[in-house]
Amino acid sequence: MKIITISREFGSGGRELGKRLADHFGIPCYDHEIIDLVAEKQGLHKDYVASVSEKSLQAFYPTTIGHRFYVPNTFIRQSVDITVEQQNILKELAARGDCVIVGRCADVVLEDRRPFKMFVYADTASKLRRCAGRTKAGEHLSDKEIVKKMRQIDKERADYRSLFTDEGWGKPQSYHLCVNTSGREIKPLVPGLASYIEAWEDTQ
Amino acid sequence: MKIITISREFGSGGRELGKRLADHFGIPCYDHEIIDLVAEKQGLHKDYVASVSEKSLQAFYPTTIGHRFYVPNTFIRQSVDITVEQQNILKELAARGDCVIVGRCADVVLEDRRPFKMFVYADTASKLRRCAGRTKAGEHLSDKEIVKKMRQIDKERADYRSLFTDEGWGKPQSYHLCVNTSGREIKPLVPGLASYIEAWEDTQ
Repeated sequence: MKIITISREFGSGGRELGKRLADHFGIPCYDHEIIDLVAEKQGLHKDYVASVSEKSLQAFYPTTIGHRFYVPNTFIRQSVDITVEQQNILKELAARGDCVIVGRCADVVLEDRRPFKMFVYADTASKLRRCAGRTKAGEHLSDKEIVKKMRQIDKERADYRSLFTDEGWGKPQSYHLCVNTSGREIKPLVPGLASYIEAWEDTQ
Repeated sequence: MKIITISREFGSGGRELGKRLADHFGIPCYDHEIIDLVAEKQGLHKDYVASVSEKSLQAFYPTTIGHRFYVPNTFIRQSVDITVEQQNILKELAARGDCVIVGRCADVVLEDRRPFKMFVYADTASKLRRCAGRTKAGEHLSDKEIVKKMRQIDKERADYRSLFTDEGWGKPQSYHLCVNTSGREIKPLVPGLASYIEAWEDTQ
């Protein structure tokens, strides 16, 4: 059984790496598919699920409300439901067979399946270049704004992880391999990584 | 030009990984050789150089003295000399051609040669097992004592690094690849790593 989980800094190319590794091994890669499944099961819009699927429960509080005791119960309830549903779906997907899972704290949720856990990161300049290539039409953000957004998203991912484990997000000890993609294309790095993962699995 | 530097937690197998990677590429691996060269050039005993070669300058102060202003100038002078000599030797070795260098903050000292920078680490249980296999004859340390020694050595390496750079020891951002050797033999991991390093070099 080969389950590969990918935690990643925003803009590091972790998602592309996941897709390419999955293609290399001829196994599925789950990323946005997880959001679609959660949305479907919870009867929620997938944009909403996407916006909260890797945030800590605190992040669900509308910032305009300000004080926690004003937060309607439905917000709390819904955020817990999404988190639980997401865990169930991760377990179902892993039970189907070998796969790559990007994000969603899958490395911790699926710990009992002994996944190969990767962390993908890069320096700020490289992440900025990668983000510049995928801005939405009509969206004009300065580099400063993009860096702020990247940090915020990474912070939310770290907070989301802290719901499940004390093993810190982005700390080497939480992963089997940490890959710095700074200044590199993802594609040529895949065969070497795949060969390393295979050696790792073989010596289990 | 392929210079590979290996930073490593004590007991993680980083030195073995360095030797095996060097063998794989057919290039030299410098580890204790650096100490011998420093000792020779400085006219010092190599055991003494070995004991201080990856410590911060503070670590040179004899602990029995207690107050810094009592430290004889010769201690300070000698520690600075060893640090400077070690840097010169690293640069000379790198100038000779492709090589693997273990420790000695070579990744920072040789930054202008754009080395491939690795960090090798493992969980405590794995490091204990590895250390148990190489205790000196007549040396009987409890697991607790070995863990204390491992932490102390890693702390000294981190402090030594802080002489050269603000990029923290053991932080992913300081390296190109962080490799967790927990529960694994080093040998089978080498071909995959070598293939990854070659792809990295090729896309430079």
